[in-house]
Amino acid sequence: MKHKLQGVLPPMATPFTADEELDLAALKANIAKWNATGLAGYLAVGSNGESVYLSEDEQQAVIAATVEAAAENKFVMAGAGRESSRETVGAIKRAASVGADCALIVTPCYFKGQMKPANLEAHYLRVAEASPLPILLYNVPQATAVNMTPDLVARLAPHPNIAGIKDSSGNIAQLSEILRLTKEQDFAVFVGNAEVLHSATQLGADGAILAVANVLPQLCVDLMEAVRSGDLAKGKALQWSMSRMAALVTSVYGVGGLKATMDMVGYHGGPVRLPLLMPDQAALEVLAAELKIATSQA
Amino acid sequence: MKHKLQGVLPPMATPFTADEELDLAALKANIAKWNATGLAGYLAVGSNGESVYLSEDEQQAVIAATVEAAAENKFVMAGAGRESSRETVGAIKRAASVGADCALIVTPCYFKGQMKPANLEAHYLRVAEASPLPILLYNVPQATAVNMTPDLVARLAPHPNIAGIKDSSGNIAQLSEILRLTKEQDFAVFVGNAEVLHSATQLGADGAILAVANVLPQLCVDLMEAVRSGDLAKGKALQWSMSRMAALVTSVYGVGGLKATMDMVGYHGGPVRLPLLMPDQAALEVLAAELKIATSQA
Amino acid sequence: MKHKLQGVLPPMATPFTADEELDLAALKANIAKWNATGLAGYLAVGSNGESVYLSEDEQQAVIAATVEAAAENKFVMAGAGRESSRETVGAIKRAASVGADCALIVTPCYFKGQMKPANLEAHYLRVAEASPLPILLYNVPQATAVNMTPDLVARLAPHPNIAGIKDSSGNIAQLSEILRLTKEQDFAVFVGNAEVLHSATQLGADGAILAVANVLPQLCVDLMEAVRSGDLAKGKALQWSMSRMAALVTSVYGVGGLKATMDMVGYHGGPVRLPLLMPDQAALEVLAAELKIATSQA
Amino acid sequence: MKHKLQGVLPPMATPFTADEELDLAALKANIAKWNATGLAGYLAVGSNGESVYLSEDEQQAVIAATVEAAAENKFVMAGAGRESSRETVGAIKRAASVGADCALIVTPCYFKGQMKPANLEAHYLRVAEASPLPILLYNVPQATAVNMTPDLVARLAPHPNIAGIKDSSGNIAQLSEILRLTKEQDFAVFVGNAEVLHSATQLGADGAILAVANVLPQLCVDLMEAVRSGDLAKGKALQWSMSRMAALVTSVYGVGGLKATMDMVGYHGGPVRLPLLMPDQAALEVLAAELKIATSQA
Repeated sequence: MKHKLQGVLPPMATPFTADEELDLAALKANIAKWNATGLAGYLAVGSNGESVYLSEDEQQAVIAATVEAAAENKFVMAGAGRESSRETVGAIKRAASVGADCALIVTPCYFKGQMKPANLEAHYLRVAEASPLPILLYNVPQATAVNMTPDLVARLAPHPNIAGIKDSSGNIAQLSEILRLTKEQDFAVFVGNAEVLHSATQLGADGAILAVANVLPQLCVDLMEAVRSGDLAKGKALQWSMSRMAALVTSVYGVGGLKATMDMVGYHGGPVRLPLLMPDQAALEVLAAELKIATSQA
Repeated sequence: MKHKLQGVLPPMATPFTADEELDLAALKANIAKWNATGLAGYLAVGSNGESVYLSEDEQQAVIAATVEAAAENKFVMAGAGRESSRETVGAIKRAASVGADCALIVTPCYFKGQMKPANLEAHYLRVAEASPLPILLYNVPQATAVNMTPDLVARLAPHPNIAGIKDSSGNIAQLSEILRLTKEQDFAVFVGNAEVLHSATQLGADGAILAVANVLPQLCVDLMEAVRSGDLAKGKALQWSMSRMAALVTSVYGVGGLKATMDMVGYHGGPVRLPLLMPDQAALEVLAAELKIATSQA
Repeated sequence: MKHKLQGVLPPMATPFTADEELDLAALKANIAKWNATGLAGYLAVGSNGESVYLSEDEQQAVIAATVEAAAENKFVMAGAGRESSRETVGAIKRAASVGADCALIVTPCYFKGQMKPANLEAHYLRVAEASPLPILLYNVPQATAVNMTPDLVARLAPHPNIAGIKDSSGNIAQLSEILRLTKEQDFAVFVGNAEVLHSATQLGADGAILAVANVLPQLCVDLMEAVRSGDLAKGKALQWSMSRMAALVTSVYGVGGLKATMDMVGYHGGPVRLPLLMPDQAALEVLAAELKIATSQA
Repeated sequence: MKHKLQGVLPPMATPFTADEELDLAALKANIAKWNATGLAGYLAVGSNGESVYLSEDEQQAVIAATVEAAAENKFVMAGAGRESSRETVGAIKRAASVGADCALIVTPCYFKGQMKPANLEAHYLRVAEASPLPILLYNVPQATAVNMTPDLVARLAPHPNIAGIKDSSGNIAQLSEILRLTKEQDFAVFVGNAEVLHSATQLGADGAILAVANVLPQLCVDLMEAVRSGDLAKGKALQWSMSRMAALVTSVYGVGGLKATMDMVGYHGGPVRLPLLMPDQAALEVLAAELKIATSQA
């Protein structure tokens, strides 16, 4: 990696046209705007990029377009987790072939009852061995109903090709343990839940990958920098200005809420793919009201 | 459909070689043996077929091989659910192109918090409209953490291209409600949990799609027929002989347990794909002991 | 016990006056009406009796009044579970002192993470040893978030003072296993979920303790008898006539819904104690409509 | 209240003799030792005091003994939550009669499906109206499977007799929202999860009620003071020295683990009441090893 794995990344929403076709021009226009902010890089085809709704070819096109549009000083992380170890390796290789810098590998989860620590450990070790890119573990129990324990993360962290983790659990006790157990390693810890960004940064998180950073990128960057520079009061004020906004575009209204809010602030959000639905009028009003609060504080 | 949608189907395990490559010869050998039983048909690339670990090409190959190997009097159901409505339609079309009779469509689930009844309803209606094959709804909350309510099923059942449901919840109250609410419809209800097969059949289920039917196909067929013919005592005896076996090859040891047990009775089970792991020695002994009980009663 | 442990029991609602005081006269009036039905007995101070809202003295008064009002041919089961083993024994002794025939002992649950099989086994054995009355295990994971496995039940069943179980999980696979594993024992299995009454009876359950039996006692009795006498079609028709009613007075609207419905059919329901609330007008209309369906079929 | 509601409190373990009888002398001896630390006060008959295993008389005796033994500068909070609003008021009155300063009222939870925000709001308002003591809300979803949302807390906070909350969810996003929404109120926010003490304090929590404070009271006090005085590095070092210890005496080994560890450091822990069990030898060794780590850093 030419870039250090740290800083704020948006898990980029993937724009579609009105008939649900991929809209790469809109994606590139978003990236052009984000290039002017303090974002450290981009996550292409993550959860919020509706990766599960994209074909393999579409995923490849999104990653390639991101690499192409990203400014020199930004790195590109590609979502490349699949249910099987072998398919995961294939997805990483494809991402590598178009220039992604690293790959984010979500825990397999379809057979949740069988995804014991031994299964996850074997999976990540096989993937890490075969991967042409540094990989990051990705723990998102809200979507997967599978949780990686800090002890398991600590066993995987020393592997030279396992570069870090994104933990979206929102569980600060768990994040704290991960930081404690990996503090001697070269291991980048990204928090994936904006509502705990202040605390995560204060505990030592290296970066953050946050849906709300699609909408309010600089606010997220400023928050992390305030905490790092010791201005905790400012950090807390920024946190409190956007916590509710962050919840609305994730757990409350999901990707539809995120895209609708992106449209409100001048990014290309656009429609979601079915079975996702766009927020109704009442939800749009809630989003607009909260957005006003968040941006007035920023 | 030339065949009536009823009877017992195995959600076929997908055999692999020692290096995890698809082993279609072994699959066809299994089907040849099953052709001699009372099974009504085959489910290709369902959950127990490790469909989530197969590439699109591999899935296609498995469906085609199943169509080719199935006896005249057996029908072929293909697992074709994807997270997005449009990808699902594509998967059904591919399955249709190689001769599948119908398609089983699991509920989308990655964004579980957003999979509200309105989303699921919109999804299934769009898929049903565009599908060249009759589709069956598939409810398996153990894997998806999403549940389809009987009321939602009842709203979808009248659609001419929605031919039925597989409900694997194991929740008999729910299955009973589905049967009650759809009893006037031409709608096939398959139970997906062998531990409640006796009760489900007695309440009027049309068929069953059961992991354990990979191992003990005729026992499952005999159980359903005993109940239908009014021999409830025999039905209960068969149920009690195999309930624990059925649990071992699903919730307890998963697909690895299923494949190991298939090997014990002369089918081709073979290895699973990582991140699944095969059962350890202690588990193999439990499986063998329970298999002895189940087969001595059959 | 002079009575055999079998048949249908209502977990009696406990009537209160408008200012939430115990109304024993109303309770006795209910029992007088129930005495004329085929109910086998009464459960005093069970969950639906709002036992958790009654003081120890009030519980004692309810049990005593029930013993007094019950017809000769009805038996009285008293809810007497407490969190600690010693308090449970005390509650059973008090119930025995006023004439209860047996005691229903819910699984302790406050420290759910610690309620492992070994804890539950030690609890029930100590209670059984010290109890002056035969006890029944009570498994209701919806309320307790603790589940007793069939294996644990099978280990406890041989104890001479453990007379049976009420399983309200609604899980027919589990109930079937309990019946299978205890079929050689003198062990009474009561189902506690009316929505699966038909299937539970068909599998061999000895009795049922059902909230809806407060409202439609004879229908529940008739259903069990129809199934036992082999008239499964009638059993299923009765089941389907009341399944939704049963859900409304339990999982949907709770004890408030139950009491409101009792008032509609001429029993004394009356108010609940705070923090429970009575159903609103819309809910009352749903209850009335469903009641009409259930009673027209009965 | 003569004391300000802030600082660290142990939810005191309740010592028993070998035959499970209340040991008030041991309790008072513990308090005498704690009086010499920086603890702000004591929580009598909280969850960790095995309150659910104590009779009403025993609870009263524990509260009275705590009031008697507490140093002048310590306040006494009494656990007084009951399932019904009226029983809760009675419990608070009894606690007040022996000198408790305030009462901690856990969310009712037996009928979890019915404990909607409206029910909880009505409950706390009725209790607050009738209570002779200031009350604190108590949210502990791990035990109750009921969660109080920040919005509900914010609606209750202005009541003059609702003095604060103990939130044991461990959810920092939720705690942050509670702090944000009540920051203009005279409302004390206590965190109930030691693994997030550093972050909670940094966000502005007024105090903490922590099982591990039974064992390591001064470490917890020092941690809060370090963070408040701006020495975040020291705060984090203390946090990391005791996070695992805190987990062991709560979620991992429960009250048995807590009491065993108290014995190791010279407090009176002693046996638990059945159905709780003491940790086995392997667990004792884990506890001892972790205790060594925690105390060496303190």
